[in-house]
Amino acid sequence: MVSVELPSFPSKQGYLACLSAILILSICTCSLCFTRPEGRKCRKLRSMEVENKYVTIKHHIHGLPSSLDFESRSATLTLMIPPGSEDVIVKNLFVSIDPYQINRMKVCSSSQKTVDFARRLHPGHRIDAFGAGRVVASGNAEFKKDELVVGVLGWEEYTVVRPGSMLRKIDSNMDFPLSYHLGILGPSGLTAYAGFYDVCKPKEGEKVFVSAACGSVGHLVGQFGKQSGCYVVGCAGSKKKVELLKEKLGFDDAFNYKEETDLKSALKRYRYFPDGIDIYFDNVGAEVQEAAVANMNAFGRVAVCGVISQYTDAGKQAAPNMLDIIYKRITIRGFLAYDHLSIYDDFVSATSDHIRHGRIQSLEDVSHGLESVPSAFAGLFRGDNVGKKLVQLAADNINSRR
Amino acid sequence: MVSVELPSFPSKQGYLACLSAILILSICTCSLCFTRPEGRKCRKLRSMEVENKYVTIKHHIHGLPSSLDFESRSATLTLMIPPGSEDVIVKNLFVSIDPYQINRMKVCSSSQKTVDFARRLHPGHRIDAFGAGRVVASGNAEFKKDELVVGVLGWEEYTVVRPGSMLRKIDSNMDFPLSYHLGILGPSGLTAYAGFYDVCKPKEGEKVFVSAACGSVGHLVGQFGKQSGCYVVGCAGSKKKVELLKEKLGFDDAFNYKEETDLKSALKRYRYFPDGIDIYFDNVGAEVQEAAVANMNAFGRVAVCGVISQYTDAGKQAAPNMLDIIYKRITIRGFLAYDHLSIYDDFVSATSDHIRHGRIQSLEDVSHGLESVPSAFAGLFRGDNVGKKLVQLAADNINSRR
Repeated sequence: MVSVELPSFPSKQGYLACLSAILILSICTCSLCFTRPEGRKCRKLRSMEVENKYVTIKHHIHGLPSSLDFESRSATLTLMIPPGSEDVIVKNLFVSIDPYQINRMKVCSSSQKTVDFARRLHPGHRIDAFGAGRVVASGNAEFKKDELVVGVLGWEEYTVVRPGSMLRKIDSNMDFPLSYHLGILGPSGLTAYAGFYDVCKPKEGEKVFVSAACGSVGHLVGQFGKQSGCYVVGCAGSKKKVELLKEKLGFDDAFNYKEETDLKSALKRYRYFPDGIDIYFDNVGAEVQEAAVANMNAFGRVAVCGVISQYTDAGKQAAPNMLDIIYKRITIRGFLAYDHLSIYDDFVSATSDHIRHGRIQSLEDVSHGLESVPSAFAGLFRGDNVGKKLVQLAADNINSRR
Repeated sequence: MVSVELPSFPSKQGYLACLSAILILSICTCSLCFTRPEGRKCRKLRSMEVENKYVTIKHHIHGLPSSLDFESRSATLTLMIPPGSEDVIVKNLFVSIDPYQINRMKVCSSSQKTVDFARRLHPGHRIDAFGAGRVVASGNAEFKKDELVVGVLGWEEYTVVRPGSMLRKIDSNMDFPLSYHLGILGPSGLTAYAGFYDVCKPKEGEKVFVSAACGSVGHLVGQFGKQSGCYVVGCAGSKKKVELLKEKLGFDDAFNYKEETDLKSALKRYRYFPDGIDIYFDNVGAEVQEAAVANMNAFGRVAVCGVISQYTDAGKQAAPNMLDIIYKRITIRGFLAYDHLSIYDDFVSATSDHIRHGRIQSLEDVSHGLESVPSAFAGLFRGDNVGKKLVQLAADNINSRR
């Protein structure tokens, strides 16, 4: 049995429509609280008030982020739904820490003008992010107090989810950890699944190269590849990660890119890819993409999922050899998971089945407490994380805490 | 009526299978003549001998080619087919001059190892190339003396076409000039048609940008675009070409890239593409590709047909912004026409119809005489040609000349 219920509130299109609804959400949730002038507040309202802490950027970020670029702020939030409102207030338990957010923190990036969920963040404002939590108060009949939910929440203790945004209930009898719904069964999982199957269109026996192979998406792509009968090699940034890929996740081979002085040679046929590369799942861009294209077979496919090396260094742009692109008829295709919702049901069904049978494993890297969000985020760009990076904001004891 | 007959000798798969057969051809035709020791030659054989002139490279070429990189040589050829041979000897009337040949003339290029017809050329050896001519002698029942043919011939006066190579008869009552079968109805036309329709998959009203828009392929792509209801802008390298594109070929707009100091700005929405670019048909690579990607709409497509600026300057590699590729879900796809033979019949039918009704025009740029081949070829890289570059080797009077 799959623990995921679809659809829920408010969309009828599968919960990952939430990804496309982030703009709506953030417009709706940019004011963190609803307050009334103190003088007119009744005692009951005051007793429902909390200081809702959130993490924000102090200024737009240029280059590598550090914890010092962030600060915590708070705003008073009344944990009650005004009459007539369909808001849902969620106490956040886990929030997702994803590299793409850095592009929103820049003063300017071409990505900010392309899709709603990539728009620029502003210093002092809340930061919307995928998360999981428990309903504290609800004006929507579809959500009841204490129900577990996932959706677009934020780097904050509580999120007020307005109508027009997205939230999905999680079966409380679910047979997977709540965190899986942010990772392997959430956006990271769909990104890996859609990118690998919809974009790369693998055939059994093909040779697959994955960069950032210990990342939230990469470690799943490699495992999907193995499940599809492909030969899979990953690269990562430490010996520990390389061992993990080979020994725990079943990659055919893996290497530490930091130890390779010449990536093109490292990928050459006589080493990791004796028969060339058919599919390159790109999470890093720059010279790794160039090396992959140079070692590709005819009709090779590059799925560009992320280019983390370019996110913090605009000079690190891949310049794949266009002679290879032409003569080997290579396709380079950028993609976003939310264009692939048509395969969402397949993704959940197949992935859940793989997990239950022990065929695919989820790597998670969890930090604790809202105050750890800045360092968790900055750590992504140093390669600190092993698998999906999450911050657990609270133990699941919201009833007792309030 | 379409003047193209399919299939002919020896393939049953449409005459453009010749493109895939170039390797076979060149192996078969690398010895230019069949001779016997002079002492044993009979008078009749001697009377059938010609000195077959051909153009070859003096050395492998690095950077921009010049006429001085080439030389003419000759080899004795007996214009008679030995008993039992299925060879066909063709007197070449037109040969095609194409930029991609420069990649074969280099001492090393990644392209040389990818497809048969791109393999390296050697100093002193003949250079195979698409051409049209008249049969002088034939050991194959499908070809008779004096018939007009097109196929893979060479930069030479006569070509001995061996079995396993490709040749196609042209209807002597054809209603198009012979040269069209090398350009608009030949490989250049198929490249434009396949690249535009199969790779770019245009929709009516989409915005199309074509570089090297006065080139052999570009001028056709733009016209196909107009026939499909697209908005088409081309760039070229001279005022004369720009005027031609706008005034003769019906492009919506065109500009001289040499006059633009900032291509990204030139393509910006408020100038040539007020609504962004949906399709970029790339013939040049480098900064033009980068500028196109920067100004692309979501789900934009780049068909990489050629990157002439990189052919003679390896440092001129395009580095399209991968953030754009991801967030705008752009596809960059290299292609070769010979992978698209399944649409060959459609291509000939549709293009012939366009020509007959005056909807599409063929631009040809013809030089004369084998000795003009080196300068014609070198001129491609200076942008000298306007349209399809051909060299006419002889007037069609082969019967009277021999």
